[in-house]
Amino acid sequence: MIKVGIVGATGYAGVELVRLLQSHPEAEITGVSSVSYEGKSISEVYPNLYGICDDTLGSEDAVVEKSDVVFASLPHGLSEKLAKKCLAKGVKLIDLGADFRLDSAEEYTKWYGKTYEEKDLHEKSVYVIPELMREQYKGQPIIGNPGCYPTSIALGLAPLVKSGIVADDGIVIDSKSGVTGAGRGLADNTHYPNCNEAFSPYKIAAHRHTPEIEQTLSKLAGKKVNVTFVPHLLPVNRGIISTIYAKLTCSVDAKELHKLYSDFYAREKFVRVLPLGKVANLRDVKMSNYCDVSVHADEHTGRAIIVAAIDNMVKGAAGQAIQNMNIMFGLKEDCGLDFVPPAF
Amino acid sequence: MIKVGIVGATGYAGVELVRLLQSHPEAEITGVSSVSYEGKSISEVYPNLYGICDDTLGSEDAVVEKSDVVFASLPHGLSEKLAKKCLAKGVKLIDLGADFRLDSAEEYTKWYGKTYEEKDLHEKSVYVIPELMREQYKGQPIIGNPGCYPTSIALGLAPLVKSGIVADDGIVIDSKSGVTGAGRGLADNTHYPNCNEAFSPYKIAAHRHTPEIEQTLSKLAGKKVNVTFVPHLLPVNRGIISTIYAKLTCSVDAKELHKLYSDFYAREKFVRVLPLGKVANLRDVKMSNYCDVSVHADEHTGRAIIVAAIDNMVKGAAGQAIQNMNIMFGLKEDCGLDFVPPAF
Amino acid sequence: MIKVGIVGATGYAGVELVRLLQSHPEAEITGVSSVSYEGKSISEVYPNLYGICDDTLGSEDAVVEKSDVVFASLPHGLSEKLAKKCLAKGVKLIDLGADFRLDSAEEYTKWYGKTYEEKDLHEKSVYVIPELMREQYKGQPIIGNPGCYPTSIALGLAPLVKSGIVADDGIVIDSKSGVTGAGRGLADNTHYPNCNEAFSPYKIAAHRHTPEIEQTLSKLAGKKVNVTFVPHLLPVNRGIISTIYAKLTCSVDAKELHKLYSDFYAREKFVRVLPLGKVANLRDVKMSNYCDVSVHADEHTGRAIIVAAIDNMVKGAAGQAIQNMNIMFGLKEDCGLDFVPPAF
Amino acid sequence: MIKVGIVGATGYAGVELVRLLQSHPEAEITGVSSVSYEGKSISEVYPNLYGICDDTLGSEDAVVEKSDVVFASLPHGLSEKLAKKCLAKGVKLIDLGADFRLDSAEEYTKWYGKTYEEKDLHEKSVYVIPELMREQYKGQPIIGNPGCYPTSIALGLAPLVKSGIVADDGIVIDSKSGVTGAGRGLADNTHYPNCNEAFSPYKIAAHRHTPEIEQTLSKLAGKKVNVTFVPHLLPVNRGIISTIYAKLTCSVDAKELHKLYSDFYAREKFVRVLPLGKVANLRDVKMSNYCDVSVHADEHTGRAIIVAAIDNMVKGAAGQAIQNMNIMFGLKEDCGLDFVPPAF
Repeated sequence: MIKVGIVGATGYAGVELVRLLQSHPEAEITGVSSVSYEGKSISEVYPNLYGICDDTLGSEDAVVEKSDVVFASLPHGLSEKLAKKCLAKGVKLIDLGADFRLDSAEEYTKWYGKTYEEKDLHEKSVYVIPELMREQYKGQPIIGNPGCYPTSIALGLAPLVKSGIVADDGIVIDSKSGVTGAGRGLADNTHYPNCNEAFSPYKIAAHRHTPEIEQTLSKLAGKKVNVTFVPHLLPVNRGIISTIYAKLTCSVDAKELHKLYSDFYAREKFVRVLPLGKVANLRDVKMSNYCDVSVHADEHTGRAIIVAAIDNMVKGAAGQAIQNMNIMFGLKEDCGLDFVPPAF
Repeated sequence: MIKVGIVGATGYAGVELVRLLQSHPEAEITGVSSVSYEGKSISEVYPNLYGICDDTLGSEDAVVEKSDVVFASLPHGLSEKLAKKCLAKGVKLIDLGADFRLDSAEEYTKWYGKTYEEKDLHEKSVYVIPELMREQYKGQPIIGNPGCYPTSIALGLAPLVKSGIVADDGIVIDSKSGVTGAGRGLADNTHYPNCNEAFSPYKIAAHRHTPEIEQTLSKLAGKKVNVTFVPHLLPVNRGIISTIYAKLTCSVDAKELHKLYSDFYAREKFVRVLPLGKVANLRDVKMSNYCDVSVHADEHTGRAIIVAAIDNMVKGAAGQAIQNMNIMFGLKEDCGLDFVPPAF
Repeated sequence: MIKVGIVGATGYAGVELVRLLQSHPEAEITGVSSVSYEGKSISEVYPNLYGICDDTLGSEDAVVEKSDVVFASLPHGLSEKLAKKCLAKGVKLIDLGADFRLDSAEEYTKWYGKTYEEKDLHEKSVYVIPELMREQYKGQPIIGNPGCYPTSIALGLAPLVKSGIVADDGIVIDSKSGVTGAGRGLADNTHYPNCNEAFSPYKIAAHRHTPEIEQTLSKLAGKKVNVTFVPHLLPVNRGIISTIYAKLTCSVDAKELHKLYSDFYAREKFVRVLPLGKVANLRDVKMSNYCDVSVHADEHTGRAIIVAAIDNMVKGAAGQAIQNMNIMFGLKEDCGLDFVPPAF
Repeated sequence: MIKVGIVGATGYAGVELVRLLQSHPEAEITGVSSVSYEGKSISEVYPNLYGICDDTLGSEDAVVEKSDVVFASLPHGLSEKLAKKCLAKGVKLIDLGADFRLDSAEEYTKWYGKTYEEKDLHEKSVYVIPELMREQYKGQPIIGNPGCYPTSIALGLAPLVKSGIVADDGIVIDSKSGVTGAGRGLADNTHYPNCNEAFSPYKIAAHRHTPEIEQTLSKLAGKKVNVTFVPHLLPVNRGIISTIYAKLTCSVDAKELHKLYSDFYAREKFVRVLPLGKVANLRDVKMSNYCDVSVHADEHTGRAIIVAAIDNMVKGAAGQAIQNMNIMFGLKEDCGLDFVPPAF
């Protein structure tokens, strides 16, 4: 059994990891930490876990000590220090924050206002969306787990961008995320009466996930790709839908698009390219590690329209992190991830 | 007092008219009709009205008989016949359906599968979004009241499209509507467990409001404008947000955009151009006749981003219809429409 | 015009007062205050008011200075001090908090942990649910405005309790309130992902509204009435439903109950006793000052079941406060309160 | 592997069975039927299942043919016929409808308007809430699976009723159910705009689950128990909370109540008696087979207050049915039922 530690276990990604790992056949949780709730039982903070996981929340150091691999779900800028500790003890790290996602130290500083202090750590890390770049994993001790929006967008756009038929500056991404995406911290915009029966975009063309999105798309395209990216806060608990508009350089109909996508993802269990005519809905992937993708054509303006739906807390965070752990430890990629989305 | 009849009073737009007109100082409801509930009291169908409006639902003919003006909220294809009846009796008509919105009989047939049987009626009708084309009203006996999506989009795009700086085929419109937009009829996609905690686009690049949107924008631009339009079903009762992406032919920053919009709507009570840095939210216009517009620039891809929010049942239907009635009868345009949106 | 000041205008009851008073024909807002946002415009805090009420939030003292009557929506224990200021200036006070609701200083101390410092102020104040005790208002300068739960419960139980056929200790009240009832302050239990798709009771048989409920019922019954009262947090923005179970001392059928209630409220505009067979729903009173009451009998266990629904922010707070202001100033009780509940 | 057939697989309980059984280690689905969708793939009706279970919906007869055990989720009155077919083929039946729940043919006729045609079938059937009456299962070929409300109520009241300290006619049950409880059929009251931001009781003291509740409680008490039962429709997808008020014949404090319950359920995995001071919330049992129970005392009126929460579709339907299947086939009772409720 892989000994798993979770640092930041009372954040939303952390507690979702606790939940998903309960049914993983090859891993067991050996430590959980939380700065805010140290000394308490995790089931006191999250009563859904009562009687299922009543582990006491300890310190970060104690968690590292007991683990083969640590999942970290920390505020930006704290993961390097943790990574150093892990590596010193021969412990692997999967970071669910943003500190190991960007290749460019400049972009990191520009968007997050912090700097990469330990450059060698970044050389020992790798960013992995399994379906698109699992072969990039070559034994690195650190994996930068992708962000939720970037996961839905990269999976939604990869076949198209790689095919080379998208016009320069021709991509508009209109994403909508459930409120858990904003995390556990209290804030005015996540106060129930403010976001129930409400809807609006935020951080318009200024969201920190933009450089991560462009990094992945640029690699796939083989050239710099710029996108317009606007996220919205959706009054549901879970899920992300990205509606993606791509101006094409040649005329392609829906059938051809569908074939392109079906072929691209033919062997991928967790990406479901829906039959032509169906539309992806975040309802249908909730609580699961699936990414549903539907493809559409607007021939009268020459655009492909791609709809990509994921559960932001599973495929967009904890589930993909476990998928990456499976890669790290040579397990089958879907091990412990066979969650069936409910109908309602 | 203007004598008002409502045909199709138990549809969602109809019952909203009943509600809004209760406080109109210059109009009184003299008749309501419903095919499905004829003979019943409207407050038996809508118990919110109990003790406030308990009028008995009669026939269409009886309503026409008693009215100076009739509001019609009927399935497509039924309004011509009603219009003929109204005109024969010297009664004015404000049609909340699609039958008097499109200039082009061909487009009507293409999108609605019906034909304009009485061409002269269409010459006696006019389509009016008051803020953009109130001067088009020159005493016509029929007004085609705009659709909900087209209202938010036309108000959101008018200053920009009129300014002539939008690239050809450069407009992408990602709209999200509350479930009342789908009306009162039962359907799988509006069954609570199907649309609660769910979200998806529908009629992708194929919604019937597309020709109406393009008709208005083309007139404003002075040339044919094509748009990519994708509506989404949002798990809230009321409201529409349109997030509009417009590729520009020249570089414009947010401040310039904001000045363009503020100047354009300087005298319009019902269009609120939000201060720079604020974002329109459908929460803030709920239950009111306001359209909130916020403007944003994505300079790294050369796009303007406009967010336009309305209450789909008020400014997007019944409220705008009353505004048009006020124009028709020479009243102040905001007469009876001073609804203050609630904070929650 | 009555000059109205609102102290605590950025709380939920405060901002609802601002909204409702916009359409009051005999009152105008002359001052608004907020400790947290002093110096800001109220429309910056509540963008729904943008362009409608952009008043600058001032100090409590400045508000008192400019007003004929002050509405106060303050944390418990702060209203006495304000009342003193008001009375010194000849300004009337309507207190939406709990400081002037309880006759018994002991009960106040027991439930709120504070004491009545200025006993004479309490002799100059009166607690008024208009439909049940409007004749208690005899010119007092202070009105203690009822709590939200107690309003729904007192209106729901008054006819029955007054009739003398309820068994001792035979009342169980199961109330459910929308989240605005918890106010504007951020808290874990009102964080969207915690209360969306969630439901539970809270402060079981220990809610501070219990003594207020028992005070009113005891007066109506002419003897001490004890109740079991359990509130629940309901995932909606607005509204309260109280389902009330009353063990009867004699056999009464639904028809007799209905007659009792219909007669009792025959002249009350704002209490709608629904036709026999209908069930009160908070949907049908939203945004209005109505209290809907439906009556039912469970003959096999000898209980009457009463369902009472109000909008917690209108009849349960700001609307009833305006109704009390109308009483205070000799206006018609429904002046400025003709809000029609929407169908959706 | 147990061969499982599901008759009525496109109803809500049916599709939930399909989902839950995907991860059962000892059972496999060998047939699914649906009258409305025969010939279609189940994943076309429920796209959440796409690529996971694409089985074609067949006929009832075909399903019986291929099964060791059949789960039936049918409208009332249809299960006897199916039971006969099953027994003729040596196939076991677990009926999720109401046809095998009531001992008394008279009560069945009174509440459901149908009659028991095949009395011998009812002698071969048994009603089982595992935690309360698993020893009643003695090899009968038919199990009547309990209703959702009755499950939450029986588990919530069993320790108290069995202890003999509840006053006659002293029980009031105020239950609230998510909308999936109303099933897949379209209806006005489950149309999204009608039940979102709405709340009300229904079938007040007249719900068909009443005789089932009283049957179980009477057996536990050893005498006839009558209850007042009022269900409410809650604007969430899943879950039931029953708030139960029981007048006691002697004085009992919360601590004693808690000990009574903790002892009673000490060995039950799926009933979690929460620590004193905590309150059951339907959020914390969602998607799982747990029933959370919290106990409270209202000493000033002499009542115990019990809050019992379940997922109506799991412990209240499909999950409990699988638990009963496990009993039927001699498996561990929790086999395949280790679902961890999510935090959000």
